Amino acid sequence: MEEREISQAVITRLPRYFRYLGLLKADGVERISSRELSRIMNVTASQIRQDFNNFGGFGQQGYGYNVEYLYEEIGKILGLDKQHHLIVLGAGNLGSALIKYMMFKNRGFLFEGAFDTDPSLQGKEIGGIRVYPPEELENFVREHEIDIAVLTIPKEEAQGAADRLVKTGIKAIWNFAHVDLKVPPQVQVESVHLQDSLLKLSYNIHRYEREN
Amino acid sequence: MEEREISQAVITRLPRYFRYLGLLKADGVERISSRELSRIMNVTASQIRQDFNNFGGFGQQGYGYNVEYLYEEIGKILGLDKQHHLIVLGAGNLGSALIKYMMFKNRGFLFEGAFDTDPSLQGKEIGGIRVYPPEELENFVREHEIDIAVLTIPKEEAQGAADRLVKTGIKAIWNFAHVDLKVPPQVQVESVHLQDSLLKLSYNIHRYEREN
Repeated sequence: MEEREISQAVITRLPRYFRYLGLLKADGVERISSRELSRIMNVTASQIRQDFNNFGGFGQQGYGYNVEYLYEEIGKILGLDKQHHLIVLGAGNLGSALIKYMMFKNRGFLFEGAFDTDPSLQGKEIGGIRVYPPEELENFVREHEIDIAVLTIPKEEAQGAADRLVKTGIKAIWNFAHVDLKVPPQVQVESVHLQDSLLKLSYNIHRYEREN
Repeated sequence: MEEREISQAVITRLPRYFRYLGLLKADGVERISSRELSRIMNVTASQIRQDFNNFGGFGQQGYGYNVEYLYEEIGKILGLDKQHHLIVLGAGNLGSALIKYMMFKNRGFLFEGAFDTDPSLQGKEIGGIRVYPPEELENFVREHEIDIAVLTIPKEEAQGAADRLVKTGIKAIWNFAHVDLKVPPQVQVESVHLQDSLLKLSYNIHRYEREN
């Protein structure tokens, strides 16, 4: 299967398909047509078929997709049949909240440690995860085979931390710092820019008010 | 100025322009060409000109854009010349982290109260913000002229909470619950689906590994 040409737009939609299929599965639905899936997800049926064709189509027959099979297959494509080992850089409020967000554990995302420059946090535990001083970062990543580093540190420190992580051979950075990171192509980055998201909401409020 | 046709894609890019202009401003840069802005933001110069033309172009002359002016104008377009009053539904880890995320206050986003079904949290304060029981939601929204509700409650409770908020006349919902909300067109919704974001990262890790 050649995946090179699959756009990030399709990939962005995959977790949403996975989420809806999970809901259908929980509701005991066994089969669903692209038309019915289209209705509940509010996208066109042709978009769904086109997206799924990137992965071989998942064999829809006259009577629709098998929900359980489709859920499992998309889960595998998303890498959910594997375990991921995570660390969090920045054990402040946001870092702590992400560690405690239990649902990630059920999906094979295992938090192994946290790092913080604040000595008063070092040695403590957050949701059962120990906080270490930054000096121990490199050894920890190698010893615990960490795949993913979550950055919840101030933007001024984020690029420097990313550079250190890249050198350890980390595979991915989940970035919550308010800055775009520069990393080599073998390191995957996904940024959650909370302020950008809130500003977009603010824009849409005021646009609606101007127009109505 | 007719803004109706501006796509959500352009709007999604606006906060990022604002962020880079803020950095340039802080660095004391007074003027910048679309070409130079293109280089540091890693988008094409024609994309930048096209995006800015949606808002009248901001009058680039031969010698580039005035950074301070552009920063202020985009800030106004994003509604940052106004104050916003927020509540948080769900005073757990994520809700608390968002309340304590101080930078939002500097931009005129004022948290006024939090709500939680847990009686042991009610009456307490998080980052100076009081936690109220859900029964007081409707009165509180009206009395404090709340614009934006932040949802950090379980997905099972999110649509019910959104329905109550819609009836109070709220303008916008910033949704962190792991579900897509259905609201009427006068209510703006921006969702931050953390799990979707992590799954996208996981996909990109495994795609890279398969291909290399």
